[in-house]
Amino acid sequence: MTSGGDCPGLNAVIRGAVLHGIKSYDHDFVGFRDGWRGVVEGDIMELPRQSVRGLARQGGTILGTSRTNPFDGPHGGPENIAKVLEANQIDAIVAIGGEGTLAGAKRLADAGLPVVGVPKTIDNDLKATDYTFGFDTAVSIATDAMDRLRTTGESHHRCMVAEVMGRHVGWIALHSGMAAGAHAILIPEHRESMEQVAMWAKEVYDRGRSPLVVVAEGFIPEGYDEAFAGKGQEASGRPRLGGAGDFVTQQIEEITGIETRNTTLGHIQRGGAPTGFDRVLATRLGMAATSMAEDHEWGKMCALRGTDVVRVDFSEALDGLKTVPLERYEEAKVLFGR
Amino acid sequence: MTSGGDCPGLNAVIRGAVLHGIKSYDHDFVGFRDGWRGVVEGDIMELPRQSVRGLARQGGTILGTSRTNPFDGPHGGPENIAKVLEANQIDAIVAIGGEGTLAGAKRLADAGLPVVGVPKTIDNDLKATDYTFGFDTAVSIATDAMDRLRTTGESHHRCMVAEVMGRHVGWIALHSGMAAGAHAILIPEHRESMEQVAMWAKEVYDRGRSPLVVVAEGFIPEGYDEAFAGKGQEASGRPRLGGAGDFVTQQIEEITGIETRNTTLGHIQRGGAPTGFDRVLATRLGMAATSMAEDHEWGKMCALRGTDVVRVDFSEALDGLKTVPLERYEEAKVLFGR
Amino acid sequence: MTSGGDCPGLNAVIRGAVLHGIKSYDHDFVGFRDGWRGVVEGDIMELPRQSVRGLARQGGTILGTSRTNPFDGPHGGPENIAKVLEANQIDAIVAIGGEGTLAGAKRLADAGLPVVGVPKTIDNDLKATDYTFGFDTAVSIATDAMDRLRTTGESHHRCMVAEVMGRHVGWIALHSGMAAGAHAILIPEHRESMEQVAMWAKEVYDRGRSPLVVVAEGFIPEGYDEAFAGKGQEASGRPRLGGAGDFVTQQIEEITGIETRNTTLGHIQRGGAPTGFDRVLATRLGMAATSMAEDHEWGKMCALRGTDVVRVDFSEALDGLKTVPLERYEEAKVLFGR
Amino acid sequence: MTSGGDCPGLNAVIRGAVLHGIKSYDHDFVGFRDGWRGVVEGDIMELPRQSVRGLARQGGTILGTSRTNPFDGPHGGPENIAKVLEANQIDAIVAIGGEGTLAGAKRLADAGLPVVGVPKTIDNDLKATDYTFGFDTAVSIATDAMDRLRTTGESHHRCMVAEVMGRHVGWIALHSGMAAGAHAILIPEHRESMEQVAMWAKEVYDRGRSPLVVVAEGFIPEGYDEAFAGKGQEASGRPRLGGAGDFVTQQIEEITGIETRNTTLGHIQRGGAPTGFDRVLATRLGMAATSMAEDHEWGKMCALRGTDVVRVDFSEALDGLKTVPLERYEEAKVLFGR
Repeated sequence: MTSGGDCPGLNAVIRGAVLHGIKSYDHDFVGFRDGWRGVVEGDIMELPRQSVRGLARQGGTILGTSRTNPFDGPHGGPENIAKVLEANQIDAIVAIGGEGTLAGAKRLADAGLPVVGVPKTIDNDLKATDYTFGFDTAVSIATDAMDRLRTTGESHHRCMVAEVMGRHVGWIALHSGMAAGAHAILIPEHRESMEQVAMWAKEVYDRGRSPLVVVAEGFIPEGYDEAFAGKGQEASGRPRLGGAGDFVTQQIEEITGIETRNTTLGHIQRGGAPTGFDRVLATRLGMAATSMAEDHEWGKMCALRGTDVVRVDFSEALDGLKTVPLERYEEAKVLFGR
Repeated sequence: MTSGGDCPGLNAVIRGAVLHGIKSYDHDFVGFRDGWRGVVEGDIMELPRQSVRGLARQGGTILGTSRTNPFDGPHGGPENIAKVLEANQIDAIVAIGGEGTLAGAKRLADAGLPVVGVPKTIDNDLKATDYTFGFDTAVSIATDAMDRLRTTGESHHRCMVAEVMGRHVGWIALHSGMAAGAHAILIPEHRESMEQVAMWAKEVYDRGRSPLVVVAEGFIPEGYDEAFAGKGQEASGRPRLGGAGDFVTQQIEEITGIETRNTTLGHIQRGGAPTGFDRVLATRLGMAATSMAEDHEWGKMCALRGTDVVRVDFSEALDGLKTVPLERYEEAKVLFGR
Repeated sequence: MTSGGDCPGLNAVIRGAVLHGIKSYDHDFVGFRDGWRGVVEGDIMELPRQSVRGLARQGGTILGTSRTNPFDGPHGGPENIAKVLEANQIDAIVAIGGEGTLAGAKRLADAGLPVVGVPKTIDNDLKATDYTFGFDTAVSIATDAMDRLRTTGESHHRCMVAEVMGRHVGWIALHSGMAAGAHAILIPEHRESMEQVAMWAKEVYDRGRSPLVVVAEGFIPEGYDEAFAGKGQEASGRPRLGGAGDFVTQQIEEITGIETRNTTLGHIQRGGAPTGFDRVLATRLGMAATSMAEDHEWGKMCALRGTDVVRVDFSEALDGLKTVPLERYEEAKVLFGR
Repeated sequence: MTSGGDCPGLNAVIRGAVLHGIKSYDHDFVGFRDGWRGVVEGDIMELPRQSVRGLARQGGTILGTSRTNPFDGPHGGPENIAKVLEANQIDAIVAIGGEGTLAGAKRLADAGLPVVGVPKTIDNDLKATDYTFGFDTAVSIATDAMDRLRTTGESHHRCMVAEVMGRHVGWIALHSGMAAGAHAILIPEHRESMEQVAMWAKEVYDRGRSPLVVVAEGFIPEGYDEAFAGKGQEASGRPRLGGAGDFVTQQIEEITGIETRNTTLGHIQRGGAPTGFDRVLATRLGMAATSMAEDHEWGKMCALRGTDVVRVDFSEALDGLKTVPLERYEEAKVLFGR
């Protein structure tokens, strides 16, 4: 079952889980359609070996996904789900999803259901795992995009801004910004004043170069409150048009007088073929999930630690968001500005 | 001299022109900085052979660009420019640019200045040439982006919309939409009602697939007037937020009830390394421009016809925009909808 | 029916032909498996609309391919094929292939069979069409590869050689070499002595740069005869190890003393997702082929002329190979050496 | 100083080291040309801030590289190098290289010279670090190439073989093979008989698919001895043409009768722009190296552990090659064959 926002590598997890189960343990597999919706409604599809052919490199999820909560609605909750499992002779659920999905999975496991998990978030904000699949692909796409923006900036003597994903954490911005050689990286975890950002841009411009600024969608400038991100409003209460990238763009232009342009990368960051890194990680996690089910390790998920795939309790992953630590931000900040 | 919006292949033109001139004719080269501004102000840089090393694959333009008009300002106009040429011992100007640039170049050539042209437009909207460099790169980037959007659409059972460049013509939308297998392609040249667009999306959705719609930024739906594109307003006079892609997205969702998401590709379409096709075309055009200057073919530009590079009068290129002809749109339309 | 070597865009042709036929003319489609083998043996598969979903961007051919000759074997020849068509209620064959395939198609059409053609060759060596699909993808892959080789050459102060496809014609070498800024392009159509090639490499090296040489697999150096390519032998009669790229590499190193390395790109040039250019071309050709069948234009194939898709007699395409003309080679040669 | 084979990310290390040193510690930098050769000969270039502009995404090394041993020749050895450092007022050497380079660096540090190290190997075979930069790029290129080979294999019903880098370890083969969904992965660390490999290919073929086999260049089949790899000879003593990929290809074809084709990826695996992952890793390592020099941590190198950059003794990295452990190979092996 795949749940929540789609992510490159979901199909590779499915393929890894199914092939390992069939070949190592003689398991049979079905897929629940569209996340928890398929679970509570018993909407399943067969997953024979040939159904997972060639999936390692295919973006999205062949099972579909949704944001349904397994405890909501007339069919939600552990008892009903237990009946669905029994009716379909299903011995275990592999729940592939992010923080919300895993929280649901934990409650079901706590209620005695046979559930194991695979962590999934393009934002890389889950604790207990070094990286999640999909993140590397998103960084790769954002980096390529910024490599392109830079040449336009330099030809027109403009400041270029790229808004990348990251509502609550700045991992995509941090990595793609470092990779692309951005002159400022703005993330939700660390406030910067617009004056400071403008000064970084100006320093670069004054040395004859074109400033490149990457902004996570959840960045809030110093002096603005949470409502900035949450309600699309300025602190002043005036309606704010566009996202953080638009705002930062307009502010840099206003403060410095440098022609500035925003590009909001949007959905292209989460679709399409995964990178080699994500395919390997996702395949290994899928295989590990099947082994966990074989071992009846209910209430646990697999995770990456260094180069090892390990098993951890759901609770470990759900202990708050994994944010960018100050030392990583300070490390990147050395490269800001001139 | 490179002028107007930047375009992948500009540097390849410069390299082709310089290397051909140095090796075949023993020419010397200087570059005017930032388009016509550098011409009217006599702001030049040396262009020795080593300055064009490795430029074939580099996006943007090392000369910089601007939208300065060569007839404006205290230093504008043919007499002043003639003085700049004389003072710097410059025998010919190679003007690389789009419709506006070439119109300026024509006026200067008509006034007796030694000017040849190289057509440049990412939108592919110049008559007298089969293709312009940069267009293939833009199509390639837009196609890749839509390949990514599709997997997200299919995982979430959404309709995905991509807004691509094309204020006045729909070539990028037409080619990238055909390449990506879009279910509707909306371009400035041909009106479609939002009801028709919504019906195409619904047909696809009802067959269990995820609709993909590509919209050129200059598309105007049937029933709306020019103000739709020009002023960012609905016909009703209410302020319209966002561009054509946002509007189409909101309308499809409203009419069909299908969850729909827009991605505006923006500046990433015009930056970065050119495709092989564009590098070859740009290199050949650059070489041809030098030969034209050697032959004193003032008032002409080089152009692609089939596989040949030919010489045509500026007037031929300036005889209106090259729009997508009805038969090409009808050809593509066969693939719309279910 | 797809026949001969595979080529990016074959699936896009199939998709274009099938969708256009179903939607415009209410045709039904079947595919012959593995080229002419499927035709003579009546080995067919249904091709309903859903079978061509998403094919525009998929490399290879879902129909399979082979090098079977339709006139060979107990089941070959027009009478037998006519029986296969009748038995399966097939009204027309769309033959997608290169010179050999189209020659076979011509003989069958001359014998009265309902055959139309679509030109296919990754080498771009068919007359009567400006370009064939697959060629642009091959150029793109070879260009990317050479961009990579160059950085290794420069770091190690080596001469890098890339052997690309092109047994009889040098189009891939010419275009990818121009695109990558190669310092020598060696093609079957034009002899160069190894001393001349070595001198080009040395000139570049002596200016502090790393020479990049692209060699078509069918290149024969001056002083060697046809046996060089045909038999993998030196003129001296000693066995020659490896292909033209290996030979050129060894010769440059021997003559100049510069450390030189070859990379034979091989099969990666013809597989995988087609470029946007090739997808558009292939889709249009597939649609045109269906229209030709609808119009009973037997004995003809569709072709690209400028930006138009036109209909030409098979004989026009079969009138010898389309080789790189001398003026195109001379144009490229200006950029060789220092 | 960069030494040994080139590797995507070297320039990013240089950039990270220089920018961090200039901005955080007010260091000045020079680069030694061509590895240890530049060190022993005192051949240096200035490295001001502007010299490292845009280097994060550039393949190769602007310093050049060589395989010179710092202890060889009339100018080699610690005393001479100490004089070079003194003469040029150099306070520390940052040695960026693989096993050989770091062994040399260790000997110099042991002799009292101020040397810190940055681990570099495209093969990922250095102990004490989870990954080395360049490896992810190589995996990415090999994976893309195999995605392309697969479509050709499927169209022609062939078995496709890809030979990738890895003379002593199989990391590139392991990761790219998992990512591309290869049906057999053959690496130096684990012998397989050619009969077993042929059986895996046959199982896949008999299920109607096209087998894909990836072979590290250092793979030695069961029944052959070290001379197989080392001398390009078969155990029988007959000269062996080509590398491990050619051999495996010929054997599969001979044993199974399935048409089989090899592609040796070669130098394209180590050139060109690094992936986002490698750019981030290389930048962080470069910055860490400068901090180590600031802290006078001679005899140490920086390394990746999980998501942290740590400092380790040279000796830790030099304690034998990091080979693919049996459990990682067994994990991958589950996906072999049918």
